[in-house]
Amino acid sequence: MKPFSVTILGCGSATPSKTRNPSAQIVNIHDRLMMIDCGEGSQMQMRRFYIKNNRINHIFISHLHGDHYLGLMGLLFTYHLFGRTEEMHIYAPQELKDVIDLQLKVSNSQLLYPLIFHPITSNTKTLLLENNTFKVFSFPVQHSVNCWGFVFEEKNCGYKINKEFITQEKPTIEEIQSIKQGADFINSQGVVFENSDIVLPADLLRSYAYSSDTIYDENIIPFIENTSLLYHEATFMHDKADVAKQKFHTTAKEAATIAYKAKAKKLIIGHFSARYDDNLALLAEAREYFPNTIAAEDGLKVEINVEL
Amino acid sequence: MKPFSVTILGCGSATPSKTRNPSAQIVNIHDRLMMIDCGEGSQMQMRRFYIKNNRINHIFISHLHGDHYLGLMGLLFTYHLFGRTEEMHIYAPQELKDVIDLQLKVSNSQLLYPLIFHPITSNTKTLLLENNTFKVFSFPVQHSVNCWGFVFEEKNCGYKINKEFITQEKPTIEEIQSIKQGADFINSQGVVFENSDIVLPADLLRSYAYSSDTIYDENIIPFIENTSLLYHEATFMHDKADVAKQKFHTTAKEAATIAYKAKAKKLIIGHFSARYDDNLALLAEAREYFPNTIAAEDGLKVEINVEL
Repeated sequence: MKPFSVTILGCGSATPSKTRNPSAQIVNIHDRLMMIDCGEGSQMQMRRFYIKNNRINHIFISHLHGDHYLGLMGLLFTYHLFGRTEEMHIYAPQELKDVIDLQLKVSNSQLLYPLIFHPITSNTKTLLLENNTFKVFSFPVQHSVNCWGFVFEEKNCGYKINKEFITQEKPTIEEIQSIKQGADFINSQGVVFENSDIVLPADLLRSYAYSSDTIYDENIIPFIENTSLLYHEATFMHDKADVAKQKFHTTAKEAATIAYKAKAKKLIIGHFSARYDDNLALLAEAREYFPNTIAAEDGLKVEINVEL
Repeated sequence: MKPFSVTILGCGSATPSKTRNPSAQIVNIHDRLMMIDCGEGSQMQMRRFYIKNNRINHIFISHLHGDHYLGLMGLLFTYHLFGRTEEMHIYAPQELKDVIDLQLKVSNSQLLYPLIFHPITSNTKTLLLENNTFKVFSFPVQHSVNCWGFVFEEKNCGYKINKEFITQEKPTIEEIQSIKQGADFINSQGVVFENSDIVLPADLLRSYAYSSDTIYDENIIPFIENTSLLYHEATFMHDKADVAKQKFHTTAKEAATIAYKAKAKKLIIGHFSARYDDNLALLAEAREYFPNTIAAEDGLKVEINVEL
């Protein structure tokens, strides 16, 4: 199975604590590294956790609260100083472009590599990036500023055909393509081979959904339904549900409820308030409502596999 | 003696390494904490080194290269989130105001505390801040962008008068003030008491000078002459003198030469290039030319005392 994993660089919320950096994650999908959010200190966290930052070509920023993007400028400067030449693609709210441009201007810098900025504006699930084997989407979430979540989805790359059938029936390349897309096959004697008899079972397609910062909101369910792994913020315990709502955040119970209703296979909660030194109580609360939950920790790597 | 110390939060240069954060320091002068520069991750470093960041009311930013200011915005947000109400004074190049304002705007934030911005523009040694017991000055340095160093100087708070003399001669308050400023005293019988006979020896006044990022430049010597402790950048070893010059930086040998010519009592070198895992060679090179040199390390606290 191709690699598909998430490494947590920071799972704290607005203010960093001794054990939690602000939000940032590295998604490895089919050996392509991508970054979600980039809180202050993310480049140091990558060094600490042996992430090769020069393998990242795409960075997705969910919203412009400082704890989700203040590490970006330092990382962009580091790429420049290390002589990067490959394109870097940033997907983010439009205003981040102004922040980057102003910071380049005041330091009298021109980046040595192309920085391609893709503003996120859509109010529905929207394709941001696609290649042969996966897609990345944004979807809107409800927070105190414009904010988006992201979904990383493997693509159906066609069914694998039984080798014995190919040796025996010698289908043409065009026929092979049709079978891979699900067609039946009829040979020169008029014998019909049903598709399900000549293809191997497709891998289960995996996906990763990142909720970003959000109030409890069932409107996101259609965007993340059946995901293999859902990262949902759980800034507070449910005894602080009022505070959570007022600050457009979610409780551990609410995160678990969303995972349950969205039929996620596994849930990882994070974005913990600095008031919780330990994440055990948050984890216990979430597991009451969605047993297959784990709690984020800085440096944690989660493999996304079909047995999740 | 009143406290006067410097704690190094980061002594790396443009790109952080595993052991060195970008530039930031805390000066404790007479129990007032002040910050010099604020590279990415400085607020985490303060937590690591048990610095109470809420005791800081004055931050001095030398120039607008990312490694000297990218941690500021996160720190300002943290103060906001923790409900700070005291004024925060920032002394920095004018353009930093635009960067702060834009980042507040895109996050839809209004700070809960007054942020007082003092632009640094002068091309000579200039008083930025003064209270009863110390002064802080900026001075211009030669770097690839507008850049300033800072000097923290204790003030002469007047001579201490021999208590026996006061009991015996009962000078008026006005006469005491005159004696503290160095005047002699004549009593009602016309007896002259020379100032040096009735006052105690003055404490030696201490100072701390921070060179910031600079090319080798003897023009800074008048601004830092006789300082108790000089922090001078030593980004490179002297075998890279050409690179240093080209990048408007200094070598360890050159830093030591400046300390020697400026008659500094002690030198601390820092702002080391990430190419040097270890600072021993840099330290050895500097000590050849100025023996009373130490090398900065993240977390190092240096007491500034008269025996330096």
